[in-house]
Amino acid sequence: MNIQQRLAALRDLMQREHLGAFIFPSTDAHQSEYVADHWKGREWISGFNGSAGTAVVTLNSAALWTDSRYFLAAEEQLKGTEFQLMKLKIEGTPTIHEWIGEQLRESERPEVGIDGMVCSAAEVEELIKELRHHGGITLRTNLDPLKIIWKDRPAIPQNKIEEHPLDFSGESCASKIQRIRRALRQQHADGMLMSALDDIAWTLNLRGTDVHCTPVFVSYLLISTTTVTLYTDEAKLTPLIRGYLTKNDIKIDDYKNVKKGLQDYFEQTILLDPNETSYTLMKAAKRDVVRGCSPVPAMKIMKNETEIKGYRNAMLRDGVAMVKFLKWLEDVIQSCPAVLPTEMEIDKKLTELRASQPLNRGLSFDTIAGYGEHGAIVHYEATPETDIPLQPKGLLLLDSGGQYEDGTTDITRTIALGPLTDEEQHIYTLVLKGHIALARAIFPNGSSGTQLDVLARQFMWREGLNYLHGTGHGVGSYLSVHEGPHQFRMEWKPQPLLAGMTITNEPGIYLTGKFGVRIENTMLIVPADETNFFPLPDGERPRYLQLEPLTLCPIDKRPIVLSMLTDEERQWLNDYHKVVYERLSPLLTDKERMWLKEATTAI
Amino acid sequence: MNIQQRLAALRDLMQREHLGAFIFPSTDAHQSEYVADHWKGREWISGFNGSAGTAVVTLNSAALWTDSRYFLAAEEQLKGTEFQLMKLKIEGTPTIHEWIGEQLRESERPEVGIDGMVCSAAEVEELIKELRHHGGITLRTNLDPLKIIWKDRPAIPQNKIEEHPLDFSGESCASKIQRIRRALRQQHADGMLMSALDDIAWTLNLRGTDVHCTPVFVSYLLISTTTVTLYTDEAKLTPLIRGYLTKNDIKIDDYKNVKKGLQDYFEQTILLDPNETSYTLMKAAKRDVVRGCSPVPAMKIMKNETEIKGYRNAMLRDGVAMVKFLKWLEDVIQSCPAVLPTEMEIDKKLTELRASQPLNRGLSFDTIAGYGEHGAIVHYEATPETDIPLQPKGLLLLDSGGQYEDGTTDITRTIALGPLTDEEQHIYTLVLKGHIALARAIFPNGSSGTQLDVLARQFMWREGLNYLHGTGHGVGSYLSVHEGPHQFRMEWKPQPLLAGMTITNEPGIYLTGKFGVRIENTMLIVPADETNFFPLPDGERPRYLQLEPLTLCPIDKRPIVLSMLTDEERQWLNDYHKVVYERLSPLLTDKERMWLKEATTAI
Repeated sequence: MNIQQRLAALRDLMQREHLGAFIFPSTDAHQSEYVADHWKGREWISGFNGSAGTAVVTLNSAALWTDSRYFLAAEEQLKGTEFQLMKLKIEGTPTIHEWIGEQLRESERPEVGIDGMVCSAAEVEELIKELRHHGGITLRTNLDPLKIIWKDRPAIPQNKIEEHPLDFSGESCASKIQRIRRALRQQHADGMLMSALDDIAWTLNLRGTDVHCTPVFVSYLLISTTTVTLYTDEAKLTPLIRGYLTKNDIKIDDYKNVKKGLQDYFEQTILLDPNETSYTLMKAAKRDVVRGCSPVPAMKIMKNETEIKGYRNAMLRDGVAMVKFLKWLEDVIQSCPAVLPTEMEIDKKLTELRASQPLNRGLSFDTIAGYGEHGAIVHYEATPETDIPLQPKGLLLLDSGGQYEDGTTDITRTIALGPLTDEEQHIYTLVLKGHIALARAIFPNGSSGTQLDVLARQFMWREGLNYLHGTGHGVGSYLSVHEGPHQFRMEWKPQPLLAGMTITNEPGIYLTGKFGVRIENTMLIVPADETNFFPLPDGERPRYLQLEPLTLCPIDKRPIVLSMLTDEERQWLNDYHKVVYERLSPLLTDKERMWLKEATTAI
Repeated sequence: MNIQQRLAALRDLMQREHLGAFIFPSTDAHQSEYVADHWKGREWISGFNGSAGTAVVTLNSAALWTDSRYFLAAEEQLKGTEFQLMKLKIEGTPTIHEWIGEQLRESERPEVGIDGMVCSAAEVEELIKELRHHGGITLRTNLDPLKIIWKDRPAIPQNKIEEHPLDFSGESCASKIQRIRRALRQQHADGMLMSALDDIAWTLNLRGTDVHCTPVFVSYLLISTTTVTLYTDEAKLTPLIRGYLTKNDIKIDDYKNVKKGLQDYFEQTILLDPNETSYTLMKAAKRDVVRGCSPVPAMKIMKNETEIKGYRNAMLRDGVAMVKFLKWLEDVIQSCPAVLPTEMEIDKKLTELRASQPLNRGLSFDTIAGYGEHGAIVHYEATPETDIPLQPKGLLLLDSGGQYEDGTTDITRTIALGPLTDEEQHIYTLVLKGHIALARAIFPNGSSGTQLDVLARQFMWREGLNYLHGTGHGVGSYLSVHEGPHQFRMEWKPQPLLAGMTITNEPGIYLTGKFGVRIENTMLIVPADETNFFPLPDGERPRYLQLEPLTLCPIDKRPIVLSMLTDEERQWLNDYHKVVYERLSPLLTDKERMWLKEATTAI
């Protein structure tokens, strides 16, 4: 079936069900960022495969909303379909409810559908309110059209669940559940339903392979004061995992029974996070619902000593893979500049180098290898149609990361493949200055990422340049590569930054049709007091924090316009490169070590 | 009556009324920052005269909450009373409701009082909720004990209202009311009650002298789709103002009748801003209440061309007064260093110099003239008890401003009176670097003040130093010196920054017991595109903004550690000083001009 045929099938069904429009969000039943194929309904109906986007289909029109990361990719992928691209946060773009209101203005049946199982309660409730405002449109939530029209829909994955050993998690499942119960009491709740797959994986110290690049498994977790029940497909459970769950006093029930579990829940109150819980499950709860934030994300982002040690070890291996790759690339360019590999070929090479590292379990997200103007497509992923060979000039933007059992990595380097234009060097240096300004920041304990974000943007703003994505996100510990709620971002993110959190530092500049630059390290938030100005008394909270780079990989020096850097900025880069060399060189061959020596000499 | 006698009278009344505690906020019936003497109940009961603070009295204890600006002053003023100082935003300080809950834990009558007329609906509702949480305490709002126990309580002011001419306001009252009605329609409200005195003065193009340093008059304004009614004491109305109001079709009613006016309001819906409207009036409304933000502040902060011209003119005169003062001070120090004037004497001198300027109508706030360690008291105001003479060494912090009919000014300079320590110079330069970083910022249209605040703090943070006040606030046009909702601040302030707003830039560092430094200019937000990088097409919104200093007065160069400044920072200071000299010099005597020449030569 092509997109037109899928739309036709959907519209047939909509006619029968008297629906004026149907909305397809990008999420699954667990509000995941990356979802199992079973839930890729928005991609199936529209053809757009980005990680974020919402498709809306009416009887005679169709539109897809996505954010700036995907504008170029979406434009490409929607070509030839009737889907109109709606650019989020760009002036003049209607909201989904405004657009639906406009489309259904003349309609006699202003009813709109959305599958209440794959959309959070908060979003559906907001949508209900807004659609009512825009012409009295009502929303129906109990129909999943994909069940009917998506004939070859992939099943919900049945992959085996694995244990995540204490050597990597650093805290037992029992201890985590105890802490969660304590937090629930403070929120006046007797229990909670956990829907977020990474929260469940973190809580139980279990991992899975159900979702591309994210080691989670499809399930729900229901916690009461006395019981913990894991709702998951029993096919996923090995005898080992059954034993582990039994030992930890965790009941097992079938994935499909979660609604019944909620209905049978016997305590007085239950916490349901409206941003995490699907609308359908929120409505299914029979007891007093405490609507509040799940306490788990705030626990999960505070990395313990074992997890931090794990990150450091994983970063050594990831750094070795990156250095091997960068040296290989340089050798290829020098030895055979006329026939260089394509974007997909270098992605394959880098993936192989990561895979050969101990404890590697694949990628943490699909590699972005964008050469030249492809680098300006923020979330570019080369396909056979777009794939181009590198050339011995210009810039390659390479954003990649690995899943290791002891940590998740996320790194972007922009690499000079040969001679550069003045503009490429100038833009590169602006981004580097922003990266360094944030990396050097010292800030009060509990500052928010919104306050600090400007440090990375200030220099490019002076020249009328900006990037429309955030400057940084948390990174999971062998979990999601995007982990919240803390971020560096222009939009308000109230989560205070605290010692022990991971966060990326990734400013960029993208000149459409020309090239893109992004420089990203994953950082650890650490106390600044001891090292800088205060002796910190025992047991006292740090008053100031700073960022320590966890990522170990040289930042390409060749594109730097030296005169644009201050002494302090140069010093930071030299200090960073010194650490990179010291830590990685013992793990390299002689030739690689020589290459790294050169790549990390002081400027 | 002394504080103890006042507390005794209050407690007698509380006993009779079966109240366990009474709360005295610092606001008046209009949620003003600065209030007429009639409403200075918190000061009367506690003795603390800062502009922000809340006193709570139980039958056997008393406490006062205030923010960091007033910690030192409050400590001083509460000495010898039974009031305990509660430092807001300092770890370990209980909230008001926590403290009351603790104090009344054993009480058999857990009822607490607050005057619902002088506290906003939002605050009272929050308080009701929190007190209920803390031990089931109830709140009574219909008793004003000050009516009974404050025997010599000043009357509500009856000062005459004056017209604020179109030459200064730039927009007629009719046009403003039309815009307000349009905004109300967008909020689905037929009318509104305006309580904020500066909003009323702005709307009607009227001014008054009821409140110290703020040219407003005590009143309410009720707007419906067809009528506008001003509730004010008729004694305040001259024949001229009566004529003006009649011409503008504005009805007059007595101040005391506002509650009745609300009860008689005849339309379907009325907007009442819960942060502006008192709890008592909110409860009095009989029609459908739209709870939302008043549209007036967002209009008032966008200065029109006439107002901007007014600021520029007022700043010329204020700059002349400041230059005359600074030269006078330098002459005094040189001619007679052994017997220098005191803090209060220099305040008097500066006030006289401002008063002698055309269109001056007094000060915009009480001058802060803090010499030496007094400079570290953020909102210090010298009293006969604390007043000290200057010495020919160290730093004087001088924060002052004038009300002019064409504009309001707010300026802080920290002045070297003679030799300085290395620490004084170092700290001064850190503050100056922060001031310049913010002054030089170029930022996307619509950024928030929270995003930019860090620019002013980044250098001091690197040394573990910070200030606990905001970095900047809006400034009214011959109105309140603090005008919101936009601010530069660590806390989240969502109001976007837009061209045409005024905002101060005032970082500081305060070393308790040593000295304080603050450097403040009032700035105008202006488009950055034209001047910097884009040619801006006609009619298009600017994409980037920057700050233009409105304040014209040299920044003392003597304390600067030159090696700590970058070339760009030095250039900014030299450029600013060039403008100061060019604009002020034609208005000065020869000797003053020579002094200014020296004070503004390039570094």
